[in-house]
Amino acid sequence: MMACDLCDNVGGELLWNSTLCRIVLVNDPDYPGFCRVVLNRHIEEMTDLEAGERSLMMRVILATETAVREVMQPDKINLASLGNMTPHVHWHVIPRFRDDKHFPNAIWGEAQREGMQRTVDVAQLRGALEKALAQF
Amino acid sequence: MMACDLCDNVGGELLWNSTLCRIVLVNDPDYPGFCRVVLNRHIEEMTDLEAGERSLMMRVILATETAVREVMQPDKINLASLGNMTPHVHWHVIPRFRDDKHFPNAIWGEAQREGMQRTVDVAQLRGALEKALAQF
Repeated sequence: MMACDLCDNVGGELLWNSTLCRIVLVNDPDYPGFCRVVLNRHIEEMTDLEAGERSLMMRVILATETAVREVMQPDKINLASLGNMTPHVHWHVIPRFRDDKHFPNAIWGEAQREGMQRTVDVAQLRGALEKALAQF
Repeated sequence: MMACDLCDNVGGELLWNSTLCRIVLVNDPDYPGFCRVVLNRHIEEMTDLEAGERSLMMRVILATETAVREVMQPDKINLASLGNMTPHVHWHVIPRFRDDKHFPNAIWGEAQREGMQRTVDVAQLRGALEKALAQF
């Protein structure tokens, strides 16, 4: 098996962890509040997971969406599981703003402008995640 | 309220429909087998849905992934809910191949090559969807 970046590394600032998956804050200055939900074992596709695990993972992803919306108040949330470069199940939860670097393009598309700089209050995000995860 | 493309149009070739959502085949010659799961009412974010609806919608999306994997045998599946241009909940379920137009980039990123041309057997896809949806 080839080395896998998400097997070998946490992939960001660890915000929450469980047996199944972890939530990390991505260090992307253009997208503060951008979180990833990363499966804690090496599986390529969501449909390779057992049904109960899929359901639990999706609940964690949508709890993350809830917390990111609360803290960042974005114009839109983008959710994506791509994994073309790192085929290890992980989900992007990205707060988007009309004045961010790529809007309305995907963040993987062509940049539209320099992008308004924002910051994230990590303590507030941790609190919002704890609250959202307790309700899912 | 502004006109919404996914309120006004089916958005592709209708493969399956329910009260909550529909599955359509996207007409993209570079991505045969590319399906979208579209909510049948105008809501912007997954977390604006009730918990039971979120769960049902995710089961439909993953049934679609199962069927697309079976029929297209892709190297990777990409799942995404963006909605920056059309803020009406819809999910992209995209079969990806190492020799497709953008791989390993997202399909919204820079093209890498002309891309191997493939076709989809729509009757086979309908059958695979029916089977997958019956099991989810």
